[in-house]
Amino acid sequence: MSSFRDDGALAVDWVASYLERVREFPVLSQAEPGAIRASLPQTPPEDPEPFSNVLADLDGVLGPGLTHWQSPRFFAYFATTSTEPAILAELLAAGLNQVGILWRTSPALQELEELTLDWLAQLLGLPPGLHGHIEDTASTSTLVALAVARAVAPGRRVVLCSEHAHSSVDKATRLLELELRKVPADEAFRLRPDAMELADACAVVATIGTTSSTSVDPVAEIADRCEKECVWLHVDAAYAGAAAVCPELRDRFVGWERADSIVVNPHKWLGVPTDCSTLWTRRQDAFRDAFSLIPEYLRVAEEVTSLSEHTQVLGRRFRALKLWAVLRCYGRSGLQERIREHVRLAGLFEQLVRAEGGWEIVAPRPFSVVCFRRVGSDDLNEEILERVNASGEVFISHTRLGGRYVLRLAIGSFRTTEEDVRLAWDVLRREADAL
Amino acid sequence: MSSFRDDGALAVDWVASYLERVREFPVLSQAEPGAIRASLPQTPPEDPEPFSNVLADLDGVLGPGLTHWQSPRFFAYFATTSTEPAILAELLAAGLNQVGILWRTSPALQELEELTLDWLAQLLGLPPGLHGHIEDTASTSTLVALAVARAVAPGRRVVLCSEHAHSSVDKATRLLELELRKVPADEAFRLRPDAMELADACAVVATIGTTSSTSVDPVAEIADRCEKECVWLHVDAAYAGAAAVCPELRDRFVGWERADSIVVNPHKWLGVPTDCSTLWTRRQDAFRDAFSLIPEYLRVAEEVTSLSEHTQVLGRRFRALKLWAVLRCYGRSGLQERIREHVRLAGLFEQLVRAEGGWEIVAPRPFSVVCFRRVGSDDLNEEILERVNASGEVFISHTRLGGRYVLRLAIGSFRTTEEDVRLAWDVLRREADAL
Repeated sequence: MSSFRDDGALAVDWVASYLERVREFPVLSQAEPGAIRASLPQTPPEDPEPFSNVLADLDGVLGPGLTHWQSPRFFAYFATTSTEPAILAELLAAGLNQVGILWRTSPALQELEELTLDWLAQLLGLPPGLHGHIEDTASTSTLVALAVARAVAPGRRVVLCSEHAHSSVDKATRLLELELRKVPADEAFRLRPDAMELADACAVVATIGTTSSTSVDPVAEIADRCEKECVWLHVDAAYAGAAAVCPELRDRFVGWERADSIVVNPHKWLGVPTDCSTLWTRRQDAFRDAFSLIPEYLRVAEEVTSLSEHTQVLGRRFRALKLWAVLRCYGRSGLQERIREHVRLAGLFEQLVRAEGGWEIVAPRPFSVVCFRRVGSDDLNEEILERVNASGEVFISHTRLGGRYVLRLAIGSFRTTEEDVRLAWDVLRREADAL
Repeated sequence: MSSFRDDGALAVDWVASYLERVREFPVLSQAEPGAIRASLPQTPPEDPEPFSNVLADLDGVLGPGLTHWQSPRFFAYFATTSTEPAILAELLAAGLNQVGILWRTSPALQELEELTLDWLAQLLGLPPGLHGHIEDTASTSTLVALAVARAVAPGRRVVLCSEHAHSSVDKATRLLELELRKVPADEAFRLRPDAMELADACAVVATIGTTSSTSVDPVAEIADRCEKECVWLHVDAAYAGAAAVCPELRDRFVGWERADSIVVNPHKWLGVPTDCSTLWTRRQDAFRDAFSLIPEYLRVAEEVTSLSEHTQVLGRRFRALKLWAVLRCYGRSGLQERIREHVRLAGLFEQLVRAEGGWEIVAPRPFSVVCFRRVGSDDLNEEILERVNASGEVFISHTRLGGRYVLRLAIGSFRTTEEDVRLAWDVLRREADAL
C-alpha cells in the first residue's frame, strides 16, 4: 500500500491544484476533433507503467481536451458542481467497490441509498412514504418510470409531454415503442393542460424546469387530469428539483407531490458529481412488478426487496455515498444558501441585460437560467455565442424559443461568484460590440 | 483547498488501511436487514458537518453492512477487484467532473473512451474496425445491443439464448417487448445450435462464460447460422472476455470476432471498479440510426458523432479514465499474469475437490470458476453454504445445474493468493464435516 499512499497523495494534490487553477483554463475545450486521440499511443502498453505517468498525461495530453465543467465560468446547459466531499466520497466508493445486486451483496449500499433518498425527499418537501433509488441519469430514470407506466396500463401506448420536454422522453418512448404526443405550450413555454388529449395515454411527463427555458408546467392541473383518467404522472424536475430545498421557491412545485414518479438529478444542482439521478415513486409495487426477476444463482433466504428489483440494471455502484457526503457536509442550510445565491445571481444578470439597450430577455426566469438575446438576427446571436465560447473566458450555450435563436446563461456552480457573472456579461457585450 | 487536501489525505489513508485490513473482515456482511438504516439519523442534517464525520461513520456505522468485495476471500458470483490505479482514477474523474453529452462537452472523455476501447479490443484479439463505448453494466450493454437488433429487423420479434444465459437477457427482452426463446443446452451447459429455431428471430445471444458454470456456447456454429439467416449475433462475454488477453485461452473465443456486438465487463475480471461495461460493434451505423437524437439545444457546428448517439443515455461520466489507468499500470503482461494465476488457482481448487472423497465436480471449468458439491442432498449443500458464509471467513455462492444445488467458487480478485484458496477449501471441509 505504500505506493498507493504515495500515488494517492499525488492524486489528491492534483485535484486540489486543478480546482485552484480551474478558473484560468479556457472553459470550452479548444481542441480539434481527433487531436487528443492522435496524441496518444495507438496500441496498448505491453508492460506496467507507474501511476505518475497517468497523472503526467492528464496534464500534458488530456488537458487541452477537457471542457471545464468545474469552472465557475461554465454557464452552459445546466452548470454543475462536483463538491469536495463528494469527490472524496467517490474515492471511498471506488476503494470499497461495493456492488449492489442483492441486499446481501451490500446491505450498507442499499440501506444508505434508501435512507439518503428519504432524507432528500424530506429536504425537498416531498410527502412521506415515497420509495426512492438512484439511477445514473435522468434518461434512465424517465425510461424506467415510463416502462412501469406502460406495464400498469396494458394496451395504452401513448405518452404526452410538452413540446419543451427533454429529449430523454423522446428516446425513452422510442425504446419502449410508445407513441409520443407533444402537447403545445403557452407563451411562457408551459404545457397547456387544455390541449392534452388523454385517450390511450399511459403516461404524462410534466416538467418543472424545462431544458430550454426552465419553464414550469402546471403540474397541479395536469395531476387533476391524470387522476381523473388514471394516467401515470411522471414529473421531470431533473434540474430544478434541487430548488425545492428553499421553501420560498416551493410555489414552483405545487402538485408534484401527487406524481406517480419524480426524477431529480443531484448531479445537476446539488453538488454531486455525475452520475446521480434520484427517482422516487409512491407506487413501489408497480416498479417491482415491472422489473423484479431473480434467477436461481441469486436466490437467498432473507426476505428483502433488493434495489435491482426496481429497475433495469442488476448491479449498482455505491452512489449513495457521495449524496450522503454532500447532504452531511452542506446540510439543509448550506444547500439553501447556494441555491439562493444562484437565483440571486441569475436575477442580477437578468437586470443587467434588461438595463442595456439592444438586448432582450426572452423567457420568464423561475430559477437560475436566463434566456436572452441580442436584438437582431439569429445569425448575429449565433456569431456572438461562437466568439464568446472561442474566447475561452466563459462557456454559454443556446436554444431555440418561439422559432428564434436564444442565448442561455445557466448558473449552477457552487464556485461561481458575482464577479464571474459580471465577467460573462462583459464578454458578451464585448463580443457583440466587435461584430 | 486546504481542507480538501487534509480531508483527502484522511480519505486516501482510510482506503489504504481498509485494503490492508480487508482480509480480516467477515466477507459477507452479517448485518440484519434494516439494522444499518436504523443506526443512522432518520432526518437530514440542518447544518454542515465536517467530512471527518462521514469517515467516522463509514467505520462505525456502515462497516458492519459492507460485504467485502475487495476481500481476497470473496469467491461468490464473479469475484472482482478495484485496483489501486483505478481507485485513484475515480478520484480524478470526480475531481474533473467531465460530462460526456456531445463531443465538445469533453473531447478528452470521448476520445479517450474510443481509444481505450480500441486498446482493449487489441488486447483481447478482437479484429480491427470495431467501434466501442462504455456502458454502466452488461444489463445496459445487452439492452442497447438488442434494441439495435430489433431496429434493424422490423417485424422480427424473437430473441434466442441458451437456458443458461444471464437474467439480463430476460430483462432486456421484457423491456423491449421481444419474445425470448430459451434454447436447450447440452450436457456441458452449452447452447445447442441444432436446437435453434431462427424463424422471426432478430437476435441470438451467445454466452462465453455463463454465470452459473462459465460454459462456452459454440459461437462459431451459432455465427454460421446467424449469418445465413441475417440474424444479429450478440456475444455476452461479460465475465470471461477478460481471459482473451491470454493467447492460450483464445480457443474459448473462436467465432466471437464475427459477432455484431460484444459485451465484456472490465469491472468483473480486469481490475476496474464497478461500473464499466464495454460494448463493441462492427455496425456503428446501426447503433447511430437506432439512438441518435439531437435536440436544438445540443446542435453544434462540428461534425463529430457523439457517444450519446450510440446509446440510450445522454450524459456519461469519465469512466474511460479508470480503464485507461488499469491498462497502463498493468499493461498486457500484468493482466495476463493475473488471469493466468486465477485460472491456475481454480485448477488447483478443482484438483483438491477431485482428490477428496465425498465431493464432486459438476461442470467443466473453462476459466476460473469451479462448480462442485458435496455428494448428497441439495439441503446438505445449502446448509454447508450457509455455514461457510456465516463463518465470515470466505464468501461463496451457489447455482443450480441439471436440477441440482451446486456450490460455486469464483476466483477473480487480484489480491487472492493460493493460501486464500486453500483456506476456502479448509473451511468448506470443516463445515461439511461438522454436519
